[in-house]
Amino acid sequence: MKTININLEKRGYPIYVGEGLIENYDLFKKHISNKKVAIITNDKVAPLYLQKITNILSTEKDIIPIILPDGEVFKNLETLNLIYDALLTNKANRQVTLIALGGGVIGDITGFAAATFMRGVDFIQIPTTLLSQVDSSVGGKTGINHQLGKNMIGAFYQPKCVIADISLLKTLPDKELSAGLAEVIKYGLIRDASFFEWLENNIEGIMKRDPQLLIQSVIRSCQNKADIVEADEFESGIRAILNLGHTFGHAIETATGYGKWLHGEAIATGMVMAAYLSEQMGWLSKEDNQRIKSLITHANLPIKPPEISKQKFLDLMQLDKKTKEDQINLVLQQGIGKAILTSDYNIEKFHNTLLQKTF
Amino acid sequence: MKTININLEKRGYPIYVGEGLIENYDLFKKHISNKKVAIITNDKVAPLYLQKITNILSTEKDIIPIILPDGEVFKNLETLNLIYDALLTNKANRQVTLIALGGGVIGDITGFAAATFMRGVDFIQIPTTLLSQVDSSVGGKTGINHQLGKNMIGAFYQPKCVIADISLLKTLPDKELSAGLAEVIKYGLIRDASFFEWLENNIEGIMKRDPQLLIQSVIRSCQNKADIVEADEFESGIRAILNLGHTFGHAIETATGYGKWLHGEAIATGMVMAAYLSEQMGWLSKEDNQRIKSLITHANLPIKPPEISKQKFLDLMQLDKKTKEDQINLVLQQGIGKAILTSDYNIEKFHNTLLQKTF
Repeated sequence: MKTININLEKRGYPIYVGEGLIENYDLFKKHISNKKVAIITNDKVAPLYLQKITNILSTEKDIIPIILPDGEVFKNLETLNLIYDALLTNKANRQVTLIALGGGVIGDITGFAAATFMRGVDFIQIPTTLLSQVDSSVGGKTGINHQLGKNMIGAFYQPKCVIADISLLKTLPDKELSAGLAEVIKYGLIRDASFFEWLENNIEGIMKRDPQLLIQSVIRSCQNKADIVEADEFESGIRAILNLGHTFGHAIETATGYGKWLHGEAIATGMVMAAYLSEQMGWLSKEDNQRIKSLITHANLPIKPPEISKQKFLDLMQLDKKTKEDQINLVLQQGIGKAILTSDYNIEKFHNTLLQKTF
Repeated sequence: MKTININLEKRGYPIYVGEGLIENYDLFKKHISNKKVAIITNDKVAPLYLQKITNILSTEKDIIPIILPDGEVFKNLETLNLIYDALLTNKANRQVTLIALGGGVIGDITGFAAATFMRGVDFIQIPTTLLSQVDSSVGGKTGINHQLGKNMIGAFYQPKCVIADISLLKTLPDKELSAGLAEVIKYGLIRDASFFEWLENNIEGIMKRDPQLLIQSVIRSCQNKADIVEADEFESGIRAILNLGHTFGHAIETATGYGKWLHGEAIATGMVMAAYLSEQMGWLSKEDNQRIKSLITHANLPIKPPEISKQKFLDLMQLDKKTKEDQINLVLQQGIGKAILTSDYNIEKFHNTLLQKTF
């Protein structure tokens, strides 16, 4: 087991990465001082792992299982209220620990429930997808969607610890493994050229789920994200580069309706669009743009956006949180391993990017 | 104008107390760096002050007025969602400032909206009741109710500033002035015996709304609360004494249905119950208990609880946030000007207090 420490002022926490971690009771014990523990999961993950974790914890803890419907469409106020209902019906008070057992949706909504139930209770994340292991487990972003936009309601709130157990990825559908790789590739693109190269060399083994390669992918991704988040916990500056591909990607997700495109798939295509615009601006070589598209393709991710009109794209991007007053900021590439947040791009080339059917 | 500075690490802010402050644009300007400003108020306060404040701000700012239905029963998820809807429909982004124009309900729900809209935006409080000027303007507690309990959902989140304009109290109904005085009296009871004495000597003038006496009452209350909150921002220790009367009071509010009893009225009766139990324990003299009841009565506040069975009282108090595991902690008096949080009281005397019809 490898431990990555997230060093935030007063709110630091460890991420444990390894195989078979959920069977290690000591790991839980270290971070749960309370008697009551609510395990929040969904109806897809519950049959796989809920009983196992309940068995491990229930000798010393009172378990409240809360099973939500699966899917991004349920990441909303109504589902959040189901968590509050269950906690209050089971007389949970401030001395409760919430465990998020699931992917990004479960992590986000459980984290937000923890941030807001009785003004804040403890929580632990057990991410069950590659995407949530490398992405939502670092950074303390929690929240839910609103019909007018993704993640519009939320809070910054840190877990007590994250248990990233690679064994849980055995049951992950191929499509979701690929979606997770989109974020893994992103870390290479924004600040770690040698990691990008390592991914190019090992993408086949990763796709075959070699445990050691997966562990390496998770560790290096979390470490990269941790470095950025530690420098900018509340996303006022450098942290914005983590949104590479996200402004395009969120628009794709919203336009197609949450859940049609997986988050990672939308982000992958968003990164391809950002790379295209970067190449058009002369900031990224044609060859490097080709390498990006190639790695994304080898990870079985889409490089072609769905049918969205330019105007629709613009409307959806304007609402994105990453806008300052009325101007669209984008994260673009200045070579592989270097991303910048900028509004200093050519507006025609940007509009032209939105009009492209293939890349 | 007098300024009280709340000194919280990285999140300090000033409370301005005086007459005619809302007409002072410079005060707003100092704390609003953004172009878009949403004023959140209710249908009772809006006709009185919304236009006035809009006029003052609208030369330099884009105003989004958001008028909510008035009352504690609307301090819930559905009303909160109305705020999110209005903000998103008006294309507000992270660079929006929310202004809470109203009493405690408006302050709590607006503060929670600010804490959670796009993971946190700026907000300013303009409390329009005595209760909210002396209570919710200090401490950063924000939140909403759940049908199973009051303030069950919320966050700690600090405003940019609080503008406590005494002139706004001219339109306050008598009943609400009294309700505010319950919290004012509380500060004397928990830690400021000389303030309690000052209140005994000036209660008549205060009831006649003498502006200078009201200003003094607000300043001294805020200063007392600020001292406590600064020592314990996240309510892990000493801050609990601010809940004098609240465990009993919340049970009264919940049992009678939100809105039947004003918060301040329930707290007043709760303080009388706490004083009674304290006297029974031998911690408070009979004479001091009499002084407490007398001042509360002179402030036109109730000292007699509604019809609630002992079991109902116990059920409701157990759910209160101030419980550690399964044991009820209470804030009790050790003389006027000294309160303690304790579970070390006689359980029969406590049950007997719940059975009393008059005090």
